[in-house]
Amino acid sequence: MPDLPRLLITAGPTREYLDDVRYLSNASSGKMGYAIAEAAAKAGYAVTLVSGPVDLTCPTGVDRVDVETTAEMRKACMGALTSCEGVIAAAAVCDYRPATRIIGKLAKTGGPMTVEMIETDDVLAEIGRCKEARWVVGFALEAENARERALQKLRAKNCDWIVVNDPTAIGSDSNSVELMDPAGAIAAEWTGPKSAIAASLIDWLHSRYD
Amino acid sequence: MPDLPRLLITAGPTREYLDDVRYLSNASSGKMGYAIAEAAAKAGYAVTLVSGPVDLTCPTGVDRVDVETTAEMRKACMGALTSCEGVIAAAAVCDYRPATRIIGKLAKTGGPMTVEMIETDDVLAEIGRCKEARWVVGFALEAENARERALQKLRAKNCDWIVVNDPTAIGSDSNSVELMDPAGAIAAEWTGPKSAIAASLIDWLHSRYD
Repeated sequence: MPDLPRLLITAGPTREYLDDVRYLSNASSGKMGYAIAEAAAKAGYAVTLVSGPVDLTCPTGVDRVDVETTAEMRKACMGALTSCEGVIAAAAVCDYRPATRIIGKLAKTGGPMTVEMIETDDVLAEIGRCKEARWVVGFALEAENARERALQKLRAKNCDWIVVNDPTAIGSDSNSVELMDPAGAIAAEWTGPKSAIAASLIDWLHSRYD
Repeated sequence: MPDLPRLLITAGPTREYLDDVRYLSNASSGKMGYAIAEAAAKAGYAVTLVSGPVDLTCPTGVDRVDVETTAEMRKACMGALTSCEGVIAAAAVCDYRPATRIIGKLAKTGGPMTVEMIETDDVLAEIGRCKEARWVVGFALEAENARERALQKLRAKNCDWIVVNDPTAIGSDSNSVELMDPAGAIAAEWTGPKSAIAASLIDWLHSRYD
């Protein structure tokens, strides 16, 4: 039985459909989020893992909620939040979706097509607004000016910490990350297999909060 | 050693990138194409499998070429075509792509975004144009008026046969298909696990062509 509080962990991509077949997504494998969920469960936390569509097995002792779209991820997270004492948001949600989802399969026209895209629900910002006494760790995947943009994201989403990594992490089994605080200071740096980084992150949060 | 000629088989989705992270794709699992490649290799064919990004192991005895975008799939197929005597095109290629691929990661604007989409290379149509004495089997995944649209596709792409299925096949381990000829007649119907449908299709083609 877990002897530590429950954590909410998100993982994987989301998908935003243009029609019944075509969707916008990203290549997030879910490996980082699943590694964190596994490390948290091993450390004794109860874990709710809200997962987009990935090809990974749910780690032992983890309660998984499967979602596909960003709206579904938002709903699952807000439903789980009240029973959790901390949040680690590793999912790479689609932040835009087609304004209209076509029923059936869009026929080719022979010419160009203009797709109106609108922003999806901002899941992490809503968690940040509703967090009360909970701590929230976000993830920032940035190609350029990574630290500056990560700090902006941390502040905009009211996170306590943000994990900064870059697009080479996508789909990889290893990663190189920095853990940044709201002042922009680097509290920790970890490089190695995602399983080792996950264990270090959980250990670090455990020392800090429990 | 294979004692039958070489087949070109395509499988999986393709991805068309909006920026370094976001892409348009579809939920094709590649299972149907991989099952056909496996059945063909078991029957004694040499097999070139041009595969989009999927989480499947290359079947024994199959030569796999990994691709990501539709343009890459076109290039790999046209390169492999001359050494093949038949083509089974089970891939679900993206038929539209963003007109511009942004370098780096597109920043959120706070407002809507308009994405101009243009048609990708039509891989199957090009194979059909260049087929000479080869036979070509296409796949049509249609939600409505399936037979009518499949027949239009067969003719537009100069296929010899087209396999008609519907969106419930996506990601599933089973399928229900019809094999249609250029006159619109149904030459065969198969329902069951994708592995069994694949074996039936290969058996049918073998009887017909070798």
